[in-house]
Amino acid sequence: MIRTSRFGVMQEIRERFANRAVSPEEVSQETLYALIEAASFAPSCFNEQPWRFLIAQGERKAALLRTLTPLNQEWAGSAPVLILTLAKKTFTQGGKDNYWHLSDTGCATGFLMLEAQRRGLTAHPMGGFSREQAREAFNVPDDYSIVHVMAVGRPGDIGKLSPRDQERNHPMPRKALEDLLL
Amino acid sequence: MIRTSRFGVMQEIRERFANRAVSPEEVSQETLYALIEAASFAPSCFNEQPWRFLIAQGERKAALLRTLTPLNQEWAGSAPVLILTLAKKTFTQGGKDNYWHLSDTGCATGFLMLEAQRRGLTAHPMGGFSREQAREAFNVPDDYSIVHVMAVGRPGDIGKLSPRDQERNHPMPRKALEDLLL
Repeated sequence: MIRTSRFGVMQEIRERFANRAVSPEEVSQETLYALIEAASFAPSCFNEQPWRFLIAQGERKAALLRTLTPLNQEWAGSAPVLILTLAKKTFTQGGKDNYWHLSDTGCATGFLMLEAQRRGLTAHPMGGFSREQAREAFNVPDDYSIVHVMAVGRPGDIGKLSPRDQERNHPMPRKALEDLLL
Repeated sequence: MIRTSRFGVMQEIRERFANRAVSPEEVSQETLYALIEAASFAPSCFNEQPWRFLIAQGERKAALLRTLTPLNQEWAGSAPVLILTLAKKTFTQGGKDNYWHLSDTGCATGFLMLEAQRRGLTAHPMGGFSREQAREAFNVPDDYSIVHVMAVGRPGDIGKLSPRDQERNHPMPRKALEDLLL
């Protein structure tokens, strides 16, 4: 099922959705770096590039997985990679608060998600985890906001999801454009 | 001048940069809606879709332009459209603070920028403006954070930029990937 686009927006944007069916098949280091490079090309205030990524595989994946809500653990555990996204709160030059650290990092993760989509991968962001536990597990310094966790991998077998997740594993509806405009 | 990609990331990501040379040529309403639709397909926590857009043309553009720093006014004034991006601070359901309202809105603007790039347009985000003046000029409710202003239009004549802007109208360097990984 693919979102219907009134205006014919790009394929990667139309096809992306919060896919919970992720195959355990490994993703190459080269591909993971391509996703980070895509993120790195995003714009940011004063070119600060506040985004940071913790690519969790193996034991680090297990530790990050434990910070997720039980419902997220159910499906995200099958992903070969979890990525913890962080955002540096202050400007490197001068040290003042960077008001845009979260929005710029969000933009970079958008680039990452679309590059993943282009490569036939899903990069599914989750807010359902304990930021405190993640901070502790990985000694994240205070100067970094914790943004989200992305499950990254190839689309997998929907039949392996719980009945609840099978039911909701499709693009969610969107507000009418008119409701987004001021 | 196009960014060099080590990993061959998508064309729209490679080619996008903070272009200050924007043609005054009009952009159709259809195209502007396509950009908003691209943004609307972004993921968000609980599918809240906290992003809102104020498309400023004509008198509204003049009012938004006045909130920019003088250096931004110099080049952005030639853009046919400015877009003010807002983010709803609280969840519609329940009214609690939405920690992800800025990062999710940043992601949506990333989708918008890449769709603009695909259509041969530039959508250049700026932090250099008065959020207070913009809030006042457009009566933005307290429940919305003001994110940034984007100048949207076709690439224009670089010769019309100030010498300073001509000099810096190229992709800016990026950190090494290794510096983004924890």
